Amino acid sequence: MRLDVVTIFPEYLEPLDVSLVGKARARGVLDVHVHDLRRWTYDRHSTVDDTPYGGGPGMVMMTGPWGDALDQTLADGYEAGASGPVMVVPTPSGRPFTQELAVELAERPWLVFTPARYEGIDRRVMDEYATRIPVYEVSIGDYVLAGGEAAVLVITEAVARLLPGVLGNADSHRDDSFAPGAMANLLEGPVYTKPPEWRGRGIPEVLLSGHHGKIARWRRDEAFRRTAENRPDLIERCDPSAFDKKDREMLSILGWAPSPDGRFWRRPQAMEE
Amino acid sequence: MRLDVVTIFPEYLEPLDVSLVGKARARGVLDVHVHDLRRWTYDRHSTVDDTPYGGGPGMVMMTGPWGDALDQTLADGYEAGASGPVMVVPTPSGRPFTQELAVELAERPWLVFTPARYEGIDRRVMDEYATRIPVYEVSIGDYVLAGGEAAVLVITEAVARLLPGVLGNADSHRDDSFAPGAMANLLEGPVYTKPPEWRGRGIPEVLLSGHHGKIARWRRDEAFRRTAENRPDLIERCDPSAFDKKDREMLSILGWAPSPDGRFWRRPQAMEE
Repeated sequence: MRLDVVTIFPEYLEPLDVSLVGKARARGVLDVHVHDLRRWTYDRHSTVDDTPYGGGPGMVMMTGPWGDALDQTLADGYEAGASGPVMVVPTPSGRPFTQELAVELAERPWLVFTPARYEGIDRRVMDEYATRIPVYEVSIGDYVLAGGEAAVLVITEAVARLLPGVLGNADSHRDDSFAPGAMANLLEGPVYTKPPEWRGRGIPEVLLSGHHGKIARWRRDEAFRRTAENRPDLIERCDPSAFDKKDREMLSILGWAPSPDGRFWRRPQAMEE
Repeated sequence: MRLDVVTIFPEYLEPLDVSLVGKARARGVLDVHVHDLRRWTYDRHSTVDDTPYGGGPGMVMMTGPWGDALDQTLADGYEAGASGPVMVVPTPSGRPFTQELAVELAERPWLVFTPARYEGIDRRVMDEYATRIPVYEVSIGDYVLAGGEAAVLVITEAVARLLPGVLGNADSHRDDSFAPGAMANLLEGPVYTKPPEWRGRGIPEVLLSGHHGKIARWRRDEAFRRTAENRPDLIERCDPSAFDKKDREMLSILGWAPSPDGRFWRRPQAMEE
């Protein structure tokens, strides 16, 4: 996979040399190119922004440098043999970046990231490139960053770990929170390792039982417990046909009941508690 | 504000020297300390993880190094005069990190981040420190990262930009997506700056009108349009008493109608389109 990042803070992308993404680059799975947007400015101050039309606080990133930078970046990539580029614009106004979208992006051969600063990029830049290539405006969460660079690190890491040959143990995907399958829409519960006692704290006995069925059940119950506590929205979204009898018992203990459409909702008294 | 980060990838945190967070440090608003967890290992291989109790793929980070690292980090901070620490554990199983939580953390004098790798940290570490200080397990979004370090960068940036004296123009907060106030729960619409024409593309005429009321209305309509498209969940969450007559007209055009409880829902025919 080829990755291009155009930014006014190239040094912010240094973590792309570290850890999992760094290893994927070293192995040739990822080909990363970071470009300084200011290369495509032509005034003494390397200006990339100007005041917004219609007034208001903040500055808007100008069409000119972005257009020139993207033309050149795309031309260079095509010349190097890349194809099928997707432009990824991190913005709090975008559609949510989810594990599903990470899987979709991991299947693309070439991602071009355009992290913005200030109030964002002049709309016409996205409109222009959307006539040529897919443009994904994505938000990594409901909070405001100083710029899109941290979002690029997040998206790149989520995508890179899904590429073939990057994670050592392919099984590690299977039990991920948000992974498809039995644990879809459930958060992972607690994990423990040696020693069996630490500062007077033991571990749940079932984990020492060697009984695979009981351990799997305990983990699923804990996943329900944690999801109900931290992410009731995920339980509401669950497909109830994926719940077995024990799941339904656990949900009932946690204060959830099936609604007329079959999905589970928190019982009103449980919400008041 | 004091920030401590304990990690096995200290070099991943280098962006904390860059841009807004870097400037906040230079100004003395943020006092950042990054610690290598492996300082608190005592074997030749600097081991921080072991196999999970109960079996399964992946590795779990051990209690020992984390306990020693956190004891020392807290002791050093207290000795340096810090107080009121909050432990922030990035994990996909946590409660969602939101702008509201960013505001809450920005009011704390001391954050201690514990980004994990592998399958996470032995549960007993969070249980132990929760008896002494607040422990926030937070998730920055519904996707899986290779480790918590990218999440630390995200949370730090979202928090740092809210600290007094960090952003030049305090007004820039006001129109943020997710900021409290008139635009609460609405995404920002498109922005434009000079030149008025670029590659044959103009800008919406209203922005040149000089008519503040019309411009504000246009921006709000565009915010509704974008939110309806990318984040219908946010419109459903809006307090409808914040909508004026023009808001209701715009929502109706976009295919939304009030439900019996007053909140707005997408009309079924609009969802089919």
